[in-house]
Amino acid sequence: MNYPNGTKAKQKLSNKNAKQKVSYSNRGMTLEEDINITNEIYLNENKAVIHKKPTPIQIVDVYYPKRSAAVIKEAYFKAKSTTDFNGIYQGRYIDFEAKETKNKTRFPLANIHSHQIEHMSAILKHGGLCFAIIRFTTLDSTYFLEGQTLINLIEKCKSIKQKSIHIDDFNSQGYLIPFTYPKRIDYLKIVDQLYF
Amino acid sequence: MNYPNGTKAKQKLSNKNAKQKVSYSNRGMTLEEDINITNEIYLNENKAVIHKKPTPIQIVDVYYPKRSAAVIKEAYFKAKSTTDFNGIYQGRYIDFEAKETKNKTRFPLANIHSHQIEHMSAILKHGGLCFAIIRFTTLDSTYFLEGQTLINLIEKCKSIKQKSIHIDDFNSQGYLIPFTYPKRIDYLKIVDQLYF
Repeated sequence: MNYPNGTKAKQKLSNKNAKQKVSYSNRGMTLEEDINITNEIYLNENKAVIHKKPTPIQIVDVYYPKRSAAVIKEAYFKAKSTTDFNGIYQGRYIDFEAKETKNKTRFPLANIHSHQIEHMSAILKHGGLCFAIIRFTTLDSTYFLEGQTLINLIEKCKSIKQKSIHIDDFNSQGYLIPFTYPKRIDYLKIVDQLYF
Repeated sequence: MNYPNGTKAKQKLSNKNAKQKVSYSNRGMTLEEDINITNEIYLNENKAVIHKKPTPIQIVDVYYPKRSAAVIKEAYFKAKSTTDFNGIYQGRYIDFEAKETKNKTRFPLANIHSHQIEHMSAILKHGGLCFAIIRFTTLDSTYFLEGQTLINLIEKCKSIKQKSIHIDDFNSQGYLIPFTYPKRIDYLKIVDQLYF
């Protein structure tokens, strides 16, 4: 939004600064944004090459104006068949999914598609490093969950007809990723501890 | 599309079969389609997990109709900062770019962005397998070019102020990928020979 006199926009900005000074909280940034910033730092440090894959889109209609860029006039979001992020770290293939929930005690399974679980399982079979980063936004808690752990938890839930994973399971089987600065979600620290 | 009586769908299918029987030619399919089909077979065979990344799009306007899927009403194509395909094979990170040209003797450098070359160079430094698959569509010739070879050729061209790579360089420094069936572009055969 553009505010001609700038008041509202300025107000927003100063609120945000004030919050950051007090708490270093990640509020206001999505998990995806936090991970993108972290990946950019990894890339600049020559530590890892990990990117978010673009959102898959089904394009239906494109308009090609003369002398300017093509405009997509009609398109739809497609379901993802793989995970959000992949790349290379220490010579190893890295692949992970990132998800947020506003729920305070449970992570709904509906957030992860069966295609994505199949993909994670295939990556593990081929020797890749595969995991999920899951944030409970209301609690400001971000967890690292190994791929096989997530797959096992999902199977356990299904066998007892539950539609979500309880946060207790995250606390006992996952790893909290602290919010740090400037690497907001420094997940490779946990990768180092677990796999190297 | 659903055809209630199945005629059109059947007709299409038999045309396709007929063509394939006669010439085994890849005409009519883009390089990207050929690679996607090949990757699907690799995936089903449990040989490798390699996917095309979706085209990056800048979404400007989305319309959310009640009771039906969101429609993107305005969006633009963004420049790619990485390559088209990546994944895992034999536990190794695989990353490559696929390009076509209608030119018969030269591959124009304008087809590959500097960001993509930087990305390929970073992947090689991190120990990934990185290459390009380039098709001269008019000649029906598809080449496999190792990442470092492509980077060297581009630098050579730039140093002598040429804007394209001559097909002679592909013949002397690349590897022809024969069109085969059902794996239309069986590039992992060349990966096997070069790296395993």
